[in-house]
Amino acid sequence: MTEGARRADAQRNIAAILAAAAECLARDPGASTSEIAKAAGVGRVTLYGHFPSRAELVDAVFVQAIATGEEALGQVDLTGDPRAALSRLIESSWQLVDHFRALLLAAQESLPPGRVRELHADPMTRVERLLERGRTQGVFRSDLPSSWLVSVMHNVMHGAAAEIQAGRITSEQAGPYINATLLAAFTPPGTEVPQ
Amino acid sequence: MTEGARRADAQRNIAAILAAAAECLARDPGASTSEIAKAAGVGRVTLYGHFPSRAELVDAVFVQAIATGEEALGQVDLTGDPRAALSRLIESSWQLVDHFRALLLAAQESLPPGRVRELHADPMTRVERLLERGRTQGVFRSDLPSSWLVSVMHNVMHGAAAEIQAGRITSEQAGPYINATLLAAFTPPGTEVPQ
Repeated sequence: MTEGARRADAQRNIAAILAAAAECLARDPGASTSEIAKAAGVGRVTLYGHFPSRAELVDAVFVQAIATGEEALGQVDLTGDPRAALSRLIESSWQLVDHFRALLLAAQESLPPGRVRELHADPMTRVERLLERGRTQGVFRSDLPSSWLVSVMHNVMHGAAAEIQAGRITSEQAGPYINATLLAAFTPPGTEVPQ
Repeated sequence: MTEGARRADAQRNIAAILAAAAECLARDPGASTSEIAKAAGVGRVTLYGHFPSRAELVDAVFVQAIATGEEALGQVDLTGDPRAALSRLIESSWQLVDHFRALLLAAQESLPPGRVRELHADPMTRVERLLERGRTQGVFRSDLPSSWLVSVMHNVMHGAAAEIQAGRITSEQAGPYINATLLAAFTPPGTEVPQ
């Protein structure tokens, strides 16, 4: 094999492993590397050559999912009334969290504490910017740091994924619940919670 | 050794292991069983005789912490204005979460998904009862299930512990932030968020 052919081969294998891992982890957050290697049509040695541990593979799949999500969230119209814009952003964000629910669980179980949140830096910055615009208009509360409000959104949304996993609520209920909860949580004290 | 002496010996060892584990895990959520055995003054074989895995030991320490917490929460005055009562309950609950922060992290890392929440059944039932009393008085929202509101409290509070661990907020800030966030989140749509 020439050097170029070897590189092309490695790239094909990495792509096949990532695609297979995304599929297997979506079906079962506990999917093993042997299962994933088999689904990718590569040997375990090849898989470990590219991803020395299961955690590194889960991390790579999660990074990819976040990138996919970022593309979708970049399309959301964040102009106009900040509350309506936040509802649209919550709706789209929730669809992503819900879609990647099993992968999120795999990541929470296998990545070091704080890593899931760290990988959400871009989506969280988008929320923070919108919150800050709404604060200047007096629509969102200014008595708490906006970084705290963003973490509340993160925790409520990821908590909803756990509620679904445990069978306490359905995917369909979660979206409206999250939206109603966060719009109220972000309302300035002394003003009315929107209907 | 007589049977009675053997039993007393085993009970002393279990108590020493649990106390040492609570101390070690409070200092370092990643504390190993060897460290814990050493701190308890027992051999690793003895430790594994009582707790076959690290997860089972973490679970037992967590069960004990919840029991301690339940005793404290049982003292909170939940009568009178439901909002003021909720603030008192949030304050006491947060002191406990903050106190057991490192242990909570250890539990989240080593127990199966859903187990931490399962062990919170009693404190969560207490919150739910108070929320329901407030709903009948129109002080808390009735448009979302009370079980959802309780899970929001659980997630916001445990999320705050992660925020402190990451150095983004301090313990002192967390209490008031959580209280302000939840009182707003639970306010019925169309009514004012309390100041």
